[in-house]
Amino acid sequence: MNDEAFMALALAEAVKAVGRTHPNPAVGAVLVKNGKVISSGFTSPVGGPHAEAIALAVAGKKAKGATLYVTLEPCNHFGRTPPCSEAIIAAGVKRVVFATRDPNPKVNGKGARRLRAAGLEVVEGVLKHASIELNHPFFRFMTTGLPWVTLKVGVTLDGKIATSTGKSKWISSEESRLVVHQLRDTIDAILVGAGTVIADDPLLTTRREDSKRARNPVRVVIDPNLRTDPKSAIYDAKVARTILATRRPAPKHAERGTEVWPFTSIEDLMRSLAAEGLLHVMVEGGAATHAEFIKAGLVDELVLFMGPRLFGHDGKTWSGMLGVTEAMKPYVFDHLDAVRVGPDLMVTARRRATSTSRSRSRR
Amino acid sequence: MNDEAFMALALAEAVKAVGRTHPNPAVGAVLVKNGKVISSGFTSPVGGPHAEAIALAVAGKKAKGATLYVTLEPCNHFGRTPPCSEAIIAAGVKRVVFATRDPNPKVNGKGARRLRAAGLEVVEGVLKHASIELNHPFFRFMTTGLPWVTLKVGVTLDGKIATSTGKSKWISSEESRLVVHQLRDTIDAILVGAGTVIADDPLLTTRREDSKRARNPVRVVIDPNLRTDPKSAIYDAKVARTILATRRPAPKHAERGTEVWPFTSIEDLMRSLAAEGLLHVMVEGGAATHAEFIKAGLVDELVLFMGPRLFGHDGKTWSGMLGVTEAMKPYVFDHLDAVRVGPDLMVTARRRATSTSRSRSRR
Repeated sequence: MNDEAFMALALAEAVKAVGRTHPNPAVGAVLVKNGKVISSGFTSPVGGPHAEAIALAVAGKKAKGATLYVTLEPCNHFGRTPPCSEAIIAAGVKRVVFATRDPNPKVNGKGARRLRAAGLEVVEGVLKHASIELNHPFFRFMTTGLPWVTLKVGVTLDGKIATSTGKSKWISSEESRLVVHQLRDTIDAILVGAGTVIADDPLLTTRREDSKRARNPVRVVIDPNLRTDPKSAIYDAKVARTILATRRPAPKHAERGTEVWPFTSIEDLMRSLAAEGLLHVMVEGGAATHAEFIKAGLVDELVLFMGPRLFGHDGKTWSGMLGVTEAMKPYVFDHLDAVRVGPDLMVTARRRATSTSRSRSRR
Repeated sequence: MNDEAFMALALAEAVKAVGRTHPNPAVGAVLVKNGKVISSGFTSPVGGPHAEAIALAVAGKKAKGATLYVTLEPCNHFGRTPPCSEAIIAAGVKRVVFATRDPNPKVNGKGARRLRAAGLEVVEGVLKHASIELNHPFFRFMTTGLPWVTLKVGVTLDGKIATSTGKSKWISSEESRLVVHQLRDTIDAILVGAGTVIADDPLLTTRREDSKRARNPVRVVIDPNLRTDPKSAIYDAKVARTILATRRPAPKHAERGTEVWPFTSIEDLMRSLAAEGLLHVMVEGGAATHAEFIKAGLVDELVLFMGPRLFGHDGKTWSGMLGVTEAMKPYVFDHLDAVRVGPDLMVTARRRATSTSRSRSRR
């Protein structure tokens, strides 16, 4: 097996941690000696040991002379845990292969430098893109201060979320709903507009078949003019942490345990959420809220569960009013892809990198 | 190699004939002796020999004792060519394997019966669904008298064909346009509404890179109230056969070689086209025409070229006004699938078999 094959095993470890590490990235590590994996690890929930530390602890003395494969550059600073670089050196590891540098300015390149200075062979960049792909929210936040925003919506084949009379059931299937709950299980926060709370009174919790593992995302409602009923199901903070972003005083909402945050703009709200470690936000409606996020250029990823129905032009389009007049101008995505989910298609797209977002990520 | 493997070769022959045989089905045949393919053939354009006849002619005396694999039951009647069953018997073929019975009531089961009566071993049903898949238009026509209707449209990720100001360029990519021309090359007729002729003045011809092979479909315009300009590019029948379906007298359109047909209803028009051997009709716009076909239940297949853009609710939806009020009611498709075409997705769907269409195909 070569470096890429062992890194793939490290990535498989990292996958186990996705959605369980915020605000840290999901990292995987394997220790290899004489061509065999002797131990492995993945990031613990915040405050617990990093992937490398776990792999080293499991291997014990056997780590001496081994090669460490890790999906992110080992840290070299005291954060909530001691620096991994020192533990790697102390264990006698002779070679470190990592997928990508840590974009955190406290680490970026310093971990690699420390290991090299101690005489270890260091290889970087193996399966780099796969590692970044696992940790978009972390990379987005470290380079822009913003969370990674996924807009998720169930639509018809003609882009509708409701009929002309407002009916919106039965668009996507039970299979798609299961996938939605899996998605909720991997994100940090779920966000809806006031209209959705008023129309649907949703819970927005994670419901999975293996219910023990389910973890509820933080629930966020944008309701600048405080139109929502404080008795709405979502404001019961005993179920899950809940944030109401509003321009009005909301003592009755607060009484139920919901945090009331001042609302200024969507971008400010996103920065505030990210600053609290909520790095992956999923927007789940309605059309007006979608339009605000799209127009603000804040949608990183689209996930459309497309059901095999047609509602017609007279139905309600998922993207809301965008005021587009020139067809070749804005709101271009890329990396379109689709997989079948039961009778539906799950269509995904990414925001196309523009000069703005590129310069942002370069800063 | 077993029967399925040889039938797959016969299907590969049939594929070569698709779009070149109307009103006949595209059929492929291979003759096999001592485990080896000794000849093959596919349906000639109308009036020419059938696939079996070609394979037999190529094999000559070697056909004696061979097994014939053919994707459709051999015919047993004098049509434009003599019956294949007699040629097969005369050649001394000892075994015939076919994929599916010919739904043509003149054939259905009679070909197989004749071969068995002559002492040949006959096996039917091998790769049946693959053969039907190649000849939907033929099967549709033979069971319902209607053509197979494909609705093809380039749309945004939010189901739009134009912005709020009517701009419609740049929705799908150059790669998708190439695929559209490949599709046009396999269909019998292409149909648009009057609005599309007025707005775009399209040619609707087939443009392929290997231009020699390109074949133009018959062009059909539905213009009940004769709103289109007789000088529109499409009415020049020197380019391709053109049909105008209208309720008004249209001598100026006819002057340019366009056939003027009386328009009564879309279903009647479809039956008239099918009766002329135009068994695969592709509808290419606009939204109002799409809505008429969808509401009439005449769309067998959707092909959406989905470009990675958003135009918003204020844009024009491809499916037109459908008047759907109950979300779980009509216009349900199935067999959703998607492939990437350049930066776009090509999303396909089939009309869901309803009790109506099932009873139709059973008659």
